[in-house]
Amino acid sequence: MGLSLRDTLIDEPAKRPHSRARLEPLPSICKVAILGFGTVGKAVTELLCCSPSLQLRLTHIYNRNVDRKRVPWVPSQVRWTDNFDEILASDVDVIVELVGGVRPAGDWVRQALCAGKSVVTANKHLIATEGDELLELARKANQRLLYGASVAGGVPVLCGLEQGLAGEKLFRLTGVLNGTCNYILSQMQNEVVSFTTALARAQEMGYAEADPSHDLGGFDASCKLTILARVGLGAQPRPQDVYSRSIEGVEAVDFECARKLGCTIRQVSLAELRGTQLYAAVQPALVPLASPLAQVKDNQNVLITAGVHGGETVFSGRGAGGGPTSVAVVSDLVSISRPESFLGSPNPRELKAYPLNHDLESPRYLRLRAPKDADISYAVSRVLSESGVSVHSVLQQSASGSMGSAPVMTLEPCRLSNLEVALERLQKLEHCFAKPLSLPIMN
Amino acid sequence: MGLSLRDTLIDEPAKRPHSRARLEPLPSICKVAILGFGTVGKAVTELLCCSPSLQLRLTHIYNRNVDRKRVPWVPSQVRWTDNFDEILASDVDVIVELVGGVRPAGDWVRQALCAGKSVVTANKHLIATEGDELLELARKANQRLLYGASVAGGVPVLCGLEQGLAGEKLFRLTGVLNGTCNYILSQMQNEVVSFTTALARAQEMGYAEADPSHDLGGFDASCKLTILARVGLGAQPRPQDVYSRSIEGVEAVDFECARKLGCTIRQVSLAELRGTQLYAAVQPALVPLASPLAQVKDNQNVLITAGVHGGETVFSGRGAGGGPTSVAVVSDLVSISRPESFLGSPNPRELKAYPLNHDLESPRYLRLRAPKDADISYAVSRVLSESGVSVHSVLQQSASGSMGSAPVMTLEPCRLSNLEVALERLQKLEHCFAKPLSLPIMN
Repeated sequence: MGLSLRDTLIDEPAKRPHSRARLEPLPSICKVAILGFGTVGKAVTELLCCSPSLQLRLTHIYNRNVDRKRVPWVPSQVRWTDNFDEILASDVDVIVELVGGVRPAGDWVRQALCAGKSVVTANKHLIATEGDELLELARKANQRLLYGASVAGGVPVLCGLEQGLAGEKLFRLTGVLNGTCNYILSQMQNEVVSFTTALARAQEMGYAEADPSHDLGGFDASCKLTILARVGLGAQPRPQDVYSRSIEGVEAVDFECARKLGCTIRQVSLAELRGTQLYAAVQPALVPLASPLAQVKDNQNVLITAGVHGGETVFSGRGAGGGPTSVAVVSDLVSISRPESFLGSPNPRELKAYPLNHDLESPRYLRLRAPKDADISYAVSRVLSESGVSVHSVLQQSASGSMGSAPVMTLEPCRLSNLEVALERLQKLEHCFAKPLSLPIMN
Repeated sequence: MGLSLRDTLIDEPAKRPHSRARLEPLPSICKVAILGFGTVGKAVTELLCCSPSLQLRLTHIYNRNVDRKRVPWVPSQVRWTDNFDEILASDVDVIVELVGGVRPAGDWVRQALCAGKSVVTANKHLIATEGDELLELARKANQRLLYGASVAGGVPVLCGLEQGLAGEKLFRLTGVLNGTCNYILSQMQNEVVSFTTALARAQEMGYAEADPSHDLGGFDASCKLTILARVGLGAQPRPQDVYSRSIEGVEAVDFECARKLGCTIRQVSLAELRGTQLYAAVQPALVPLASPLAQVKDNQNVLITAGVHGGETVFSGRGAGGGPTSVAVVSDLVSISRPESFLGSPNPRELKAYPLNHDLESPRYLRLRAPKDADISYAVSRVLSESGVSVHSVLQQSASGSMGSAPVMTLEPCRLSNLEVALERLQKLEHCFAKPLSLPIMN
């Protein structure tokens, strides 16, 4: 298979899109290779092997040291290999890339597209960093590159942004996009456990990896937010340019205080167009208990889109795990296998290079940390007011946390740049012995 | 424009779908006519006239007695007409049908497709009753018939079911699909007003029509459920075969009792595959306060899909009104205007004629009505137990409603057929002077 670009240009007469004529679809089977036989690879294999009605046939499974991966329930016609070149040389129509990471995954995707194979991937890191280039390559090669599984697992958010909301002028995307963080914060909220205990539980449940830094620090969600911002807002941030803060500083006492404000704490991903600028951030934030952001349970995901004409639309469900992610992968495969399938990037929005602006004004939650017997209130007031930051209300003066007293207050809406100056100075105060924790309060 | 089927078959060489080659898309404008200049027609016109980046050009507006409809803000190049044949004979590429009802809308859609024009419609009644035939006609005519606006307004549920969840084996769809009923029931819940007052408010707000019987009685939601069941479950119920009960019997006292059970009351639409049978119903039901069904506010809509592999996915947002509905219409237009757009029905699910079964077993809420001083409890117990229906708990013995005493109880899971026998007998009891109200309790 695999037509060259040259063939393409010669083959088909120019037609106006709206008068395009088409033959009855031919019955056809689409041959599929899977790269990576981990949790998702196994689940995709199960779906493909157990749904004989699909026009999809699994023919190859690639994994390193493939022999230790073989399972008896895969039909004997499926070829197992640890040689990617064998797959490239085969007659498979679509390669499902589930190895993760940028290298060698990106090179393999490029080679597959150039060899005339379409690609389905769940790789958010790759699409967030090299998606533009890979989509352009796919377009030139007349192949499809689909990545529905890269954001929110089984929740069909990309399809909603690309198609169902194609006619909407979206200006904001808010979401809980990382299941690990949501599981940890939900545990801290509902079971009143410490961050360390909640993280250990997440690791036991298989929701957090041995090195969870990409989840906790926001890089995982930043990749997803980057992809969403591209498809939904036509913006082009890079994941490393998204303002990110870790959830690691959040303690049990913060949930207590949040509850007094009718809120809880979530890792919130937010991309918003403000005039000609883009705001993009992933950080722990206070969210009202009645918000869909607060109601998303355990390791689930939610996305709220805001548009000029239709208002807010909410998508939620299981954002990770073999089952939901394999549904997203197979949905992309079904899309490719349809005889009427279309090529190219379906993005309805013109892409623009919006300058980023992180200096957003918002009300804030602020917790300090001081020795039990130190009174730092006067010094704190002075620093805040000199930095142009006003206290809205004091939630607790000095109720003790695990390490001393913890004065907690809410701040009037202030710019991040002003707050950062204040936080810098607060950290240097004589009795303020830990980094203050500040969280935006969402409305 | 408008190629005949014959041209089509001669024009294009057979190609295997996965190796299909395609030219670079040509820049092209898609010409649009709108039929019906009501709330949605106006909103679609605004979107088309104010978004110059779209590859869509509004060229015609049809309405009866068109002169009284003209507005000055529509560009002068747009032709206003009250003659449908003029539109049919024009060079428009797509007709947007917003006149509603089955006649003449259905005939016009047929004529448009046969004249080589694609159609976008928001007409749930038409698609629910004649969608199969119209989609087949569209396929034969190599045109597209899209109806994303027919269910849940701006919430992209059909696109989610058709594409994002194409790889999922869905077995249940549960939703709040009628904004009028949801506004009325939300008012009764939150403002503690009577049904009559809530209905009057809905009419004032423009959420309910002068004759609201299609909304209250469930026919509107049945049409939407029929369309969802087709796309999501591959089932083919007719709207008139959906089991429907009006919300009109629900009173303030029922919300009080529901709250004691941690529930509220919603008009719930449910389609579920059980083995080889389909259950499809639209009726008022008790739903837990924590369920997304309870949390959908005012005139909003929500759909919960349940699948074997990915679990539950929730879609919610504004299901009616000019803004959200016009977003859905324009999204369909964008889809058609894309040079890469595909033809035919994108339904990934094989359609089957599942036999309907309404005799579902579920726990129930039961309220009776008797004169203030009558004790009917013994007679009621006897009738229920003789019909094979067991009382789970008594919520109130005889607290007075507006018309007398109102014994309220919950029932153990029982079949609808058994309950109906019991209700028939209860109505004939000496002191039971009004029709008992029974509502299923959702879990």
